[in-house]
Amino acid sequence: MSNTIVNEMKIVKAESSKIQDVDFDNIDFGRVFTDHMFSCDFKDGKWQTPEITPYQPLTIDPSARVFHYGQAVFEGMKAFKDDKDAVWLFRPEDNFNRINISAKRLAMPEFPKEYFFNGLETLLKLDKEWVKKGDGNALYIRPFIIASEPAISASPAEEYKFMIICSPVKAYYKDKIKVVIAEKYSRSADGGVGFAKAAGNYAAQFYPTKLVQETGFHQVIWTDANTHEYLEEAGTMNIFFRINDKLVTAPTSDRILDGITRKSIIQIAKDNNIEVDIRPVTVKEIKEAAKDGSLKEIFGSGTAAVVSPISAFKHGEEVFDVVEPENTYHGMFKRQLMDIQYNIAEDKHGWRYKI
Amino acid sequence: MSNTIVNEMKIVKAESSKIQDVDFDNIDFGRVFTDHMFSCDFKDGKWQTPEITPYQPLTIDPSARVFHYGQAVFEGMKAFKDDKDAVWLFRPEDNFNRINISAKRLAMPEFPKEYFFNGLETLLKLDKEWVKKGDGNALYIRPFIIASEPAISASPAEEYKFMIICSPVKAYYKDKIKVVIAEKYSRSADGGVGFAKAAGNYAAQFYPTKLVQETGFHQVIWTDANTHEYLEEAGTMNIFFRINDKLVTAPTSDRILDGITRKSIIQIAKDNNIEVDIRPVTVKEIKEAAKDGSLKEIFGSGTAAVVSPISAFKHGEEVFDVVEPENTYHGMFKRQLMDIQYNIAEDKHGWRYKI
Ligand SMILES: Cc1ncc(COP(=O)(O)O)c(C=O)c1O
Ligand SMILES: Cc1ncc(COP(=O)(O)O)c(C=O)c1O
Repeated sequence: MSNTIVNEMKIVKAESSKIQDVDFDNIDFGRVFTDHMFSCDFKDGKWQTPEITPYQPLTIDPSARVFHYGQAVFEGMKAFKDDKDAVWLFRPEDNFNRINISAKRLAMPEFPKEYFFNGLETLLKLDKEWVKKGDGNALYIRPFIIASEPAISASPAEEYKFMIICSPVKAYYKDKIKVVIAEKYSRSADGGVGFAKAAGNYAAQFYPTKLVQETGFHQVIWTDANTHEYLEEAGTMNIFFRINDKLVTAPTSDRILDGITRKSIIQIAKDNNIEVDIRPVTVKEIKEAAKDGSLKEIFGSGTAAVVSPISAFKHGEEVFDVVEPENTYHGMFKRQLMDIQYNIAEDKHGWRYKI
Repeated sequence: MSNTIVNEMKIVKAESSKIQDVDFDNIDFGRVFTDHMFSCDFKDGKWQTPEITPYQPLTIDPSARVFHYGQAVFEGMKAFKDDKDAVWLFRPEDNFNRINISAKRLAMPEFPKEYFFNGLETLLKLDKEWVKKGDGNALYIRPFIIASEPAISASPAEEYKFMIICSPVKAYYKDKIKVVIAEKYSRSADGGVGFAKAAGNYAAQFYPTKLVQETGFHQVIWTDANTHEYLEEAGTMNIFFRINDKLVTAPTSDRILDGITRKSIIQIAKDNNIEVDIRPVTVKEIKEAAKDGSLKEIFGSGTAAVVSPISAFKHGEEVFDVVEPENTYHGMFKRQLMDIQYNIAEDKHGWRYKI
């Protein structure tokens, strides 16, 4: 292994690549990782020298607080390769800002910007062969921070580990998805951590999601925990409704993740002169719109799922099919979004970031 | 190292004990661990052969779901040593049942009872020197389950690790504690995971707790997330109020942990002919009771903290001191509870469990 220090970063390269063992055409989301990983420890009140090493298991004490108190936050972003083999990120500053918003809410130290971008770029350059060309192909990038201090008192840790691992992916949901609107379980409360990408938010959704999957549906659409009358978001996607020609989505709040795909779609809609209504959305109005035919589309948006149409939703015992028009907004948004991401279309808003 | 298989359990003993390096009189909560640990992996749809090994770091993939989605639950229990060197647990069946209630809510497999008790007993016999005699001394026992499967898709893992680690402790809070009643932040929602010992519930409290600690208080008393009008529980304790001679505490719900100390205190109160009112408790009535002098005590109950009196509470800008009578309920409850735990008093309800 070669061992170099670049820009205050220690780099240990993998002796050989695992890439030839990977069947890129048949790849499950998030199971295969690239040759390298980035990590940086927080200790003695500061972030230490970052490292890139071969992808490998961690050695961590069983008393590390992440195991007991879920003090962990993460991000999800993607790198795309264009026709000329250039690699692009999409709005990475927003992911950087958001991981620190999440970290703050969980009483974790914020990660420095130079370390984040320097680590990310160096890692992606090393592993650029893992970013595959082609529509839907991407390298999913997972920055995360965990509380590593070996002590189980119920208080914020003094030691953390920031890491970036990367996994080649294809599209997340292969089929149209069918959802159930939450009436009993809830995802987050006012004053809680719903707006953060806090690890515990996700495990909390697994059981209610499993229950709906047992009945042939795919995901839960979360509603407000108080009344279950307002539609909020899905497990890993924000939600949009098209009512006639208007696009409607819930405002962000301390219960809802401020999705980067969501805000990009809102901008793309505006760029296409589509009216966007950002306001609380009731279950009642969506059911009525489904009944009177004014509900034209429902779709989710997220980095992993990109833009995912929802073909049916269930509320109580009623199931509503969403009958889409021929030309869908979600189809157009997805195409325009991906054309920006893959460096095919003009980048009017400065969203692309070249590696 | 000797390496034996006992009752379908693999046991690797530590070559030497670390116990002589420990200053038992000056010990921070949860920083020092005993010589051994218990672990058992879930794989291929079932729990594998359990192991006891020397306490040591884990080797775990950075993509393990516990790091990303907080799929982790835990328990907290204590072992006590009596005058004749016998070691006792307190209501361990309740901890066993509760970890499986928590596991179920987080879509994790339940742990088998024989494995739990066999592991616990074998571990405590090996490390019994670590259970120290004396009022307040105990061995804190931390069973926990983490999602270890190396794959970052946002769904329940297929692989888990159940572990028990043990840490010698003294009393948790050394002083009387001052609390702030939550008005903005919240701990859990209806339909959420507040009733479970889910890892993520704890990290979510760190930041609001840090904020109150910066103003000279110690803990937050959580209120219902909707109205902040009802008093629920503290970060790791249930909460009791004494109004004149009556004991009042909130009912358990899907937002509140069903504390084992809480229900033991309710029983002890009844055994002492003290009236116990289990009903929603409003912030308003407690403030009024503080003003008119009918509020005699507030205290928290929990395995780590045992019974901890609260000397003052803050709501908005108002601070209320709790002026206790000479003979407190909490003093009596703590004495009677500990006398049962340390095998000093009669065990009327069959709460003790001999190792
Ligand atoms: C809860 C939740 N909502 C929405 C999203 C979509 O956010 P983004 O578009 O930034 O990926 C995600 C995933 O990142 C999420 O975890
Ligand atoms: C949130 C919460 N409430 C209450 C308690 C007290 O429960 P127990 O008495 O079973 O320790 C704990 C700690 O275990 C807890 O974590």
